[in-house]
Amino acid sequence: MKDQFSPEKSKELQVQEVILHLTQDITLPENTVDQLITGSADQVITGIVVTFMPTQHVIEQAIQQGANLIIAHESPFYNHHSATDWLATDPVYTYKRNMIDQAGIAIFRCHDIIHRYNPDGITEGLIFDLGWNTYVSQRTSETDVVTFPEETTVRAVAQQLKEHLGLEYVRIAGGPETVCRRAAVLVGFRGNGHVTIPLVQNKHIDLIIAGEGFEWETPEYIRDAMQQGTSKALIMVGHAESEAPGMKLLADRLAAAFPAVEVSFVQERPVFEVI
Amino acid sequence: MKDQFSPEKSKELQVQEVILHLTQDITLPENTVDQLITGSADQVITGIVVTFMPTQHVIEQAIQQGANLIIAHESPFYNHHSATDWLATDPVYTYKRNMIDQAGIAIFRCHDIIHRYNPDGITEGLIFDLGWNTYVSQRTSETDVVTFPEETTVRAVAQQLKEHLGLEYVRIAGGPETVCRRAAVLVGFRGNGHVTIPLVQNKHIDLIIAGEGFEWETPEYIRDAMQQGTSKALIMVGHAESEAPGMKLLADRLAAAFPAVEVSFVQERPVFEVI
Repeated sequence: MKDQFSPEKSKELQVQEVILHLTQDITLPENTVDQLITGSADQVITGIVVTFMPTQHVIEQAIQQGANLIIAHESPFYNHHSATDWLATDPVYTYKRNMIDQAGIAIFRCHDIIHRYNPDGITEGLIFDLGWNTYVSQRTSETDVVTFPEETTVRAVAQQLKEHLGLEYVRIAGGPETVCRRAAVLVGFRGNGHVTIPLVQNKHIDLIIAGEGFEWETPEYIRDAMQQGTSKALIMVGHAESEAPGMKLLADRLAAAFPAVEVSFVQERPVFEVI
Repeated sequence: MKDQFSPEKSKELQVQEVILHLTQDITLPENTVDQLITGSADQVITGIVVTFMPTQHVIEQAIQQGANLIIAHESPFYNHHSATDWLATDPVYTYKRNMIDQAGIAIFRCHDIIHRYNPDGITEGLIFDLGWNTYVSQRTSETDVVTFPEETTVRAVAQQLKEHLGLEYVRIAGGPETVCRRAAVLVGFRGNGHVTIPLVQNKHIDLIIAGEGFEWETPEYIRDAMQQGTSKALIMVGHAESEAPGMKLLADRLAAAFPAVEVSFVQERPVFEVI
């Protein structure tokens, strides 16, 4: 039996110690969404679950595993700032909230923090999962620019994304046979035009790979470029699909940093399917 | 030869007369996005093209048809407020802009206006295209609540949406076999949680049909509900796919209102495909 699972050892670690570890050397913006959403900072940790989205299923998994700290990238309550007043009488919210509170689960949001790591911990996890580390030709706070070893097609890149991220589909603009060599990888909600369009020009990008973004911005820019005869493309992999690998990487690092508690990553299925 | 195509007659109509017609009895919000984005108000109309998104292809179609007024629901320049300073040196923007200006095309944005019609002109067009007029059990400024004649499945509703709107796919949350009877239909970007979640409860909705919305809001609420054993579902049809029918209906009405000019609706393909 492994030493780190003994209850004596895990008793020593409080939620606030993990928060301190996560936020070390990080300057958070004033309006940060990162906070302890449920539970208390002086709670003794019985186990840590790391996840992208703390869904009902993830909460139940944590309870089943005897873990009482969930570190999540997104809010459990269907809005970025975790407001709950508007949900006070909602049965889905109250069911979930009661289960969290009764089980004494602390949920800590790790959104702004991990995006401020150098390099961005979410982008780093995605690039790592894709096996693209050696393709990275430039790293900024918003994107990793990758240069593929040779020209390829959007279809081939999409196939790689689907295989490595376990996806049934991706959405594309610009056509599957479009040839590309330099891609900008943008996780989460960085798929909007004010981020992607300057990149396309300044970094000589022919393929945008993003999580999510407004449908009337980047995709329409790509369509116009193609209709003008300029070869550009976009692959939208999904918000969670682009960010979960970064949280998985964080779970690995927390497991190494806190050997006295069990740390596990809980993966959800993609929230959408296509029919 | 039809009388309305004679050049003498169309000479009489200026862009501002069509704008006046569209905005009659409408109070626009202070920060409205509806404006003449290109061209001038005193331009004599040679033909009208109505569309959802004035893409490069739509501009070229207008020029080919000899039309110099495009009435569009969305901006031609990849951002809601049609800002262009950030695009000044962008080759895709400048190519499109030069073509618009050289051809003397006036683009009028009809976004806030048509959403303020009573009933909302965009929702009305979608419901009409779906043949669901008799199913509408409640109409608010944001949604049409439809009650299907009998219980059905998400798969069956998705099939209807695909057939009537000419779609290759829709994205769903909550599973294709989920049974539903009452749906809230929300066009464009009305698919977010602060709109959909109160509706689900207050209007006893079991299916949300929306255009677009944040992936971390409504879909995750639906997932939680399902994981709690409550039968709810969501179909995302796409922003343009949900709103184009409303612009098509507007084209029909403008054709009736201005018989002296040729009015046509130009449809684009969905901007995304899935692979």
